[in-house]
Amino acid sequence: MEETRELSKEISQAVISRLPRYFRYLGELKDEGVTRISSKELSDLMHVTASQIRQDFNQFGGFGQQGYGYNVEFLYDEIGNILGLNKTHHLILVGAGNLGQALVNYMNFKRRGFLFRGIFDKNPALYGKKIRDIEVQPMENMEQFVKENNIDIAVLTIPKTSAVEVAGILSNCGIRGIWNFAHCDLNVPPHIQVENVHLSESLMKLSFLLKNEELE
Amino acid sequence: MEETRELSKEISQAVISRLPRYFRYLGELKDEGVTRISSKELSDLMHVTASQIRQDFNQFGGFGQQGYGYNVEFLYDEIGNILGLNKTHHLILVGAGNLGQALVNYMNFKRRGFLFRGIFDKNPALYGKKIRDIEVQPMENMEQFVKENNIDIAVLTIPKTSAVEVAGILSNCGIRGIWNFAHCDLNVPPHIQVENVHLSESLMKLSFLLKNEELE
Repeated sequence: MEETRELSKEISQAVISRLPRYFRYLGELKDEGVTRISSKELSDLMHVTASQIRQDFNQFGGFGQQGYGYNVEFLYDEIGNILGLNKTHHLILVGAGNLGQALVNYMNFKRRGFLFRGIFDKNPALYGKKIRDIEVQPMENMEQFVKENNIDIAVLTIPKTSAVEVAGILSNCGIRGIWNFAHCDLNVPPHIQVENVHLSESLMKLSFLLKNEELE
Repeated sequence: MEETRELSKEISQAVISRLPRYFRYLGELKDEGVTRISSKELSDLMHVTASQIRQDFNQFGGFGQQGYGYNVEFLYDEIGNILGLNKTHHLILVGAGNLGQALVNYMNFKRRGFLFRGIFDKNPALYGKKIRDIEVQPMENMEQFVKENNIDIAVLTIPKTSAVEVAGILSNCGIRGIWNFAHCDLNVPPHIQVENVHLSESLMKLSFLLKNEELE
């Protein structure tokens, strides 16, 4: 425990961003029955340099053995643990529009231990509607529901006009993380973790890349 | 033209990733009627150091004047131009599920010049269904449609099992960019730009942050 703690503090944002991709490739290798892989093979597969791979894994104390390479299943499990995927997360969805419904319907999240437990919307026309067997409830029920059901993550698929207010309410009722799709920054207390998905900004990056390619 | 070319080549990925956020804040300031802003004020607003802001803008030749600060509208327009938002992009959506529908319905894209022109799906039950006045067509029509309608961006909201094949077809019919929501890497020719949105990986990052917070 102590060791993990020390290590995780030092991990750079860049490495954290790369971990889920390693996890995905190792999961695919595992599914294909591959039991071990060298950093060179993993490098060819992922189009990342072998030295980058070794450096990244060294941040967590290695995992590899000289001449043997990496044990796929062990590495997969270890990275899963580092990512906190060895425990179940309880989620609520706030905003039951198309995007929210898409997320609740995405089965892979469940497989990874992310369980949607409640869905909230301010549109009365949606109350009682079921998405994957979960009924849409009025926003007014959200706070109590979070407190009573040990919810740790709230997924915000609401417009930015209401996201700041909702984040404020959530901050005071025990939520630990917000997965924010609203196109704004949430100023929440530092003990609450926020991961933003700003789709417009992603599309603008693509636009930039197209323009840059044009100029070359 | 030559100067832009030189400049854009040198811009780091990190700066590119920050540009859309500057653009968003400047747009909001503009809407509020703010005409000029110092890097200190922008820094307080965005929670980024003033020196970071100056460094970022210097990559494009500055924009600011000593003692005056930045002209909000000018800076907004310049960053928009750098991001390629001063021209219209023509998009197709491939995969008309909840996520795809959410993207087509998101009006902000249109406001930024990203126009959905065609929607394709392999599910016959969806053929003819209209999303924002655009009819869902069979996948078989995609290639010809892209060629005939000057489409530059394809948005892939399909499972990873078909994404690689679809990306291959698109690569050969004139597409310039792919906005990829499928949870896989696309190996397309280098002249085609890919921007990935891997939602699972974003959620795993949040899980990592929660675990890390727990350990501290």
